[in-house]
Amino acid sequence: MTPAALAEGVLAGDQRALARAITVVENREPGARELLSRLHPHRGGAAVVGVTGSPGTGKSTLVDRLAKAYRAKDLTVGVVAVDPASPFSGGAVLGDRIRMTGGDMDVFVRSMSARGSLGGLSAATADAVAVLDAFGKDRIVVETVGAGQNEVDVVRTADTVVVLVTPQSGDDVQMLKAGILEIGDVFVVNKADLAGAGRTVRDLEEMVHLAGGRVGSHRDGGEGAGWTPPVVETVATEGEGIDDLVAALDDHRALLEDSGRLDRRARERDAETLRRLLREDVGRLVEAELSARGGLEAAVDRIEAGETTPYDLAAELVAPFERLERELAGE
Amino acid sequence: MTPAALAEGVLAGDQRALARAITVVENREPGARELLSRLHPHRGGAAVVGVTGSPGTGKSTLVDRLAKAYRAKDLTVGVVAVDPASPFSGGAVLGDRIRMTGGDMDVFVRSMSARGSLGGLSAATADAVAVLDAFGKDRIVVETVGAGQNEVDVVRTADTVVVLVTPQSGDDVQMLKAGILEIGDVFVVNKADLAGAGRTVRDLEEMVHLAGGRVGSHRDGGEGAGWTPPVVETVATEGEGIDDLVAALDDHRALLEDSGRLDRRARERDAETLRRLLREDVGRLVEAELSARGGLEAAVDRIEAGETTPYDLAAELVAPFERLERELAGE
Repeated sequence: MTPAALAEGVLAGDQRALARAITVVENREPGARELLSRLHPHRGGAAVVGVTGSPGTGKSTLVDRLAKAYRAKDLTVGVVAVDPASPFSGGAVLGDRIRMTGGDMDVFVRSMSARGSLGGLSAATADAVAVLDAFGKDRIVVETVGAGQNEVDVVRTADTVVVLVTPQSGDDVQMLKAGILEIGDVFVVNKADLAGAGRTVRDLEEMVHLAGGRVGSHRDGGEGAGWTPPVVETVATEGEGIDDLVAALDDHRALLEDSGRLDRRARERDAETLRRLLREDVGRLVEAELSARGGLEAAVDRIEAGETTPYDLAAELVAPFERLERELAGE
Repeated sequence: MTPAALAEGVLAGDQRALARAITVVENREPGARELLSRLHPHRGGAAVVGVTGSPGTGKSTLVDRLAKAYRAKDLTVGVVAVDPASPFSGGAVLGDRIRMTGGDMDVFVRSMSARGSLGGLSAATADAVAVLDAFGKDRIVVETVGAGQNEVDVVRTADTVVVLVTPQSGDDVQMLKAGILEIGDVFVVNKADLAGAGRTVRDLEEMVHLAGGRVGSHRDGGEGAGWTPPVVETVATEGEGIDDLVAALDDHRALLEDSGRLDRRARERDAETLRRLLREDVGRLVEAELSARGGLEAAVDRIEAGETTPYDLAAELVAPFERLERELAGE
C-alpha cells in the first residue's frame, strides 16, 4: 500500500490501516516519512498520558483499568506499551493485552521494544502516538517500565506523566532518586490495600512538597508553576481509585489547555521532530559521502598509515558542502 | 598561542602547554581540531585504564595509589577525572587531587565535567586522553563516577576497564545490574578489610563465571574470548592489593597487544572520531541552512500554521546537499 493510501485509511478510521501504519513507523519502513507528513495536519485531538513505574507495580493492570474507564465515558483509547529492555516486540505481551482489554476495537494496544537504537525508541513512540492521534483516538496512554534515561525519554513524549509506586518497595525510592520524581505530574500509590500504603503516600506528598515547583514534566521553563502533583491511591486489580486518577488526569489536562502550554508543547514537539529528521538526513549524507570515497575502512587505512588524520579528512570531506552552504547563504 | 605552537609545546614536554591544550580541547575552543590533528600522529604509547564505581567505593584513593605505583616504576601518569553529574569543572576537586598526588609533575590530574552535552563529555575525554598520549604519558587513568550510560561511554574510551565495588553495598548489585558488569575487564573489591568482603568476591567471581565470554569491554565482535576478568581485593587507604591490581592491568594490556586488539581498537577509535567530526560538521551546515531560512522559530511558525510539516521541511532543507552528494558520487 502506498503511504498516501495508508494515510487515507488511517484518517478514514480503518483499524487495519492503523495497525499497518504503526508498523511502518516503528520499523522506519520506506514511506514512513511521507505517511507521517500526510497525517501531521490531522494531529492534536488526543490527550497523551505517560505511565511509568518499576516492574511489579501493577502498571499494565492500571493502564487496562484506565482504558476501560475512558471507554465507559465513550472515549476511544490507544495504548502504546514500550519495553526498552526487551529486544522483542509484539508477541506474547501483545496477545495478553488484547485479551485483557476484552477485544474492544476502540482500545488499540501496541507493544514496542528496543529493536533499533534507544534514541530511536522514543522517536518511534512519538511517531506511533502521532498516528493514533491522527486516527482520532481521544486518549493515548504510553506505558513504559523502569526509571532509566531511555524510559524517561519515552514517557516524556506524553503531555501528562503518571509515576506509579507500591507501598514500601525499596526499589521505588531508588526509582524516585533516579530523576523520576521530577517528571511526575501525578503520582499513584497502587496496591494501596497493602500495609504501609499510608506511609508511602505521606512520603511522596512530603517529597512533592519539599521539591516545590521543581516537580512535574513541564517544569522546564518554569512551567511547573501552578500545579502540585497529587498523590492518588489505587487498587488497580479491584478498580479502586481509578475514578480519582481519571479526575487528576483531567485536571492536569485542563491546566495544560487553559495556560496555553499544550500549544507550546506542540511547537516544541515539532521543533524536536525537525531537528531529529535533519540529524538523520545529515547522518545519511555523511555515510554516502564516505562510501563515495571508498568507504570508512579505506579512510581508516589512510589514517593508520599516517597519510592523514580524522580531523584533516573530515575537513576535506565536508569542504564541498561548506562551499554549497556559503553559496546558498549568499543567494 | 597558535594551535601549531601549542602542539609543539605539548610534544616538547611542556607541562603548561599540556594543561592549556587540554583546556582547549575540553572547551572546544577554536583551534582544537588543528591542535588534535597535529598531535594525532604522535599518539599510541600510552596504556589507558578506565576506573568506574559508585560514590564511596574509594575510587579517588585507589587511582592515587595506582598512580603512585606506576611512578615507583618510573612510568609517567596522566589522570582524567570525569564527573558527568557535575556542571562544574576543575576547582576544588582538581586542587585536592593535586595535593593528594604530592605535586608530582609527572602525575598530571585533570577534572572534567558535564559542561557541554553529555555525548560531548565522552568525546572531550577521548580528546584529553589523546593530548596526554601525544605528550608522552606512559599510563593514563580515566576515572568516572557511577553506572549510567554516560559513564559507560566515558569509561569505554579506555583500553582496560576497572570496575570498583565495596563489600555488600546494595548499590553495587544495582550498578552491576545496570550493565557495568559487562564492561569490566578487571573487578576490584576495595575496602576488602570490611566484613563480607569474601562474599562479595565470591559473588563477583560467580557472576564472571556465569557470564562466560560475555564480560569485558572488548566483548563486541567476540573479543572477550581469552580473558576471564580477575577479581582483585584491595584496601586502597593502606595501599594493600595495589601491586595485584597493577599486575592484572599489565596482564590485560599484554593480551591486548599480543592479540592485535590494540591495533583494531586504534582503527575503531579513529573511525568513530571521523564519524563524530563529520556529524558535527554537517550538523553545523544544516543549522546554518536553517538560520539562513529565518531560523527554527520561523520554521515552527510555518508548521503550526499548517503550511508545511517537519517532514516536508526537513526534506526541503536537505535537498540541495543531497543533490551535491549525488553529483559528488557521480564524479
